[in-house]
Amino acid sequence: MQTLRVALGDRGYPIHVGPGLLESADLFAPHLGATAAVITDALVAPLHLERLARTLERAGARVVSIVVPDGEQHKDWRTLDRVLDELLASRCDRSVTVVALGGGVVGDLAGFAAAIYQRGVAFIQVPTTLLAQVDSSVGGKTAINHARGKNMVGAFHQPRVVVADVGTLATLPGRELRAGLAEVIKHGLILDASFVAWLEDDMPKLLAGDAAALTRAVLRSCELKAQVVVSDEREQGLRAILNFGHTFAHAIEAGMGYGAWVHGEAVGAGMVMATELSLRAGLIGPQDARRPSALISAAGLPVAGPAGLSPERYLELMSVDKKAAGGRIRFVLLEAIGRAVIRGDIPPGLVCDAIQGCTARGTASSAAT
Amino acid sequence: MQTLRVALGDRGYPIHVGPGLLESADLFAPHLGATAAVITDALVAPLHLERLARTLERAGARVVSIVVPDGEQHKDWRTLDRVLDELLASRCDRSVTVVALGGGVVGDLAGFAAAIYQRGVAFIQVPTTLLAQVDSSVGGKTAINHARGKNMVGAFHQPRVVVADVGTLATLPGRELRAGLAEVIKHGLILDASFVAWLEDDMPKLLAGDAAALTRAVLRSCELKAQVVVSDEREQGLRAILNFGHTFAHAIEAGMGYGAWVHGEAVGAGMVMATELSLRAGLIGPQDARRPSALISAAGLPVAGPAGLSPERYLELMSVDKKAAGGRIRFVLLEAIGRAVIRGDIPPGLVCDAIQGCTARGTASSAAT
Repeated sequence: MQTLRVALGDRGYPIHVGPGLLESADLFAPHLGATAAVITDALVAPLHLERLARTLERAGARVVSIVVPDGEQHKDWRTLDRVLDELLASRCDRSVTVVALGGGVVGDLAGFAAAIYQRGVAFIQVPTTLLAQVDSSVGGKTAINHARGKNMVGAFHQPRVVVADVGTLATLPGRELRAGLAEVIKHGLILDASFVAWLEDDMPKLLAGDAAALTRAVLRSCELKAQVVVSDEREQGLRAILNFGHTFAHAIEAGMGYGAWVHGEAVGAGMVMATELSLRAGLIGPQDARRPSALISAAGLPVAGPAGLSPERYLELMSVDKKAAGGRIRFVLLEAIGRAVIRGDIPPGLVCDAIQGCTARGTASSAAT
Repeated sequence: MQTLRVALGDRGYPIHVGPGLLESADLFAPHLGATAAVITDALVAPLHLERLARTLERAGARVVSIVVPDGEQHKDWRTLDRVLDELLASRCDRSVTVVALGGGVVGDLAGFAAAIYQRGVAFIQVPTTLLAQVDSSVGGKTAINHARGKNMVGAFHQPRVVVADVGTLATLPGRELRAGLAEVIKHGLILDASFVAWLEDDMPKLLAGDAAALTRAVLRSCELKAQVVVSDEREQGLRAILNFGHTFAHAIEAGMGYGAWVHGEAVGAGMVMATELSLRAGLIGPQDARRPSALISAAGLPVAGPAGLSPERYLELMSVDKKAAGGRIRFVLLEAIGRAVIRGDIPPGLVCDAIQGCTARGTASSAAT
């Protein structure tokens, strides 16, 4: 097991990463109130709920379980209201600790429930997907979707501890593991060249589910993200570099209909586009520009956008994205492997060329196969 | 106009108190984003909305108005969802400033909407009832009710500024003004003997709506509450003294059905009971014990609980109250005029005697007449 501390003053917390941690009562005990309310979904419950509940009981807590339906479409008012209702029905008072067991959807929903239940209660993250372990573990963002937009209602609410058991990744479908690797690669590309070199060498181990390699990948990703978040907790500036590849990815997801591509796949293709744009803008040379797509491809992720989405449509979709401040699209680009920069002055023609250069020819998308 | 600064570090903010402040664009301008979304209710809108909207426009903002139905029963999920929906429909981004114009219900609802809209946006309080001016202006509490309990869902979210225009109190029904005075009196009784002496002298001016007297009462109440909140922002300990009279009051409200007595009326009778209990517990002498009920009576508030609610029923209702930690009822009592103490060791027999000594004989309650 390895431990990282996120240094957010009196809201700081540890992230424990390693195999078999769901069994470690000691990791949970210091952070639990009298009651632990485990919130999970119908997919994860049969895999891990009983084991975690036994661990929390050994740690001295009364355990209440709330199982919500699986899927992003349930990250909504209705499910949230049901969670709050069950917390009240189970007579949970302000001393309850909400435990989120699952992927990003469960983490966002349970974290937001914890943020607003009786004006805020303690919260523990137990992420069971690679994406949640490297992305939701750090940042304190919680939210639900609204009919008019994703994540439009939410709060910043930091967990007391994150327990990332890489053993849970063994039950993850390959497509979900690869999607998580997109964010791992992103953290390297924007912040740490030597981590990129390690990923280039050890990608086969990660894809094979090697526990030591996964522990290192999760821990380093969290460390890198934490560096950014600690210096910009409320998302005022620097934190925008975490959107590397995401401006393009959001356009792909919106253009294809949410769900056609999983988020990590869209981020894979989006990072290739952002790299191509960095090259065409003269920020990096051709040698550096080849490495991201090779690494993304090695992770089994798409390196080209879907056929049938024109560059003009991307521009349209990107300009309604909320990251477009004051109408200009701000792009996160690479100055080098491991160093990102934010640019708001990129001519649209250059953007179209970059997208064109990274789009699949033909009719089927590479991600859906 | 007088101004008080609530010293909560980077969440600190000014409270401006005086007549005619709804017209002062200068008070709002430093705290406004590009758009001001005014949230008010159907009762307050015809009285003050147009005037405030013109002021906010003079301060440079685009103004969006959201009018919700009047009444505590609308401080719920459904109204909140409507508010969030209208904010999104009006294309408000994170730079919006939510302005709550109204009493405590509007303040709680609008404050909570601001706390969770796009993970938190800026918020201005414009309280138009005496209760909201002296109570909701300080503390940062926002919430909605849930079918299983009042204020069960909410957040701590501090405003950027509070503008308390005592001119708005001229349109307040007398019963609402008196209910607000209950909290003013409470702040004096628990924290400031000389403020109590001033209230004893100047109560007729307050009841007559004298602007200078109201300004002083609101400002000093906010100052006193701020002293407590600043030392205990998240309600861990000391802040409990603000519940003086409220343990009894909640029992009266729950026992009579919410709405039969307005909150301030129940607090009036509750403070008399808490004082009687302080006397019977030997904490204060008979001379001091007479002053609270005389002052509460002078404010036109009930000094006796409703007939038909037995002392045993009070104990039952008080022990399910969330302020009862670990089963024992903790009472806020007086050690002197202007000095409160929290006691968890009061024998139930003594509590019954105190309630019995402060209960109306006969069948009609003194508050409903």
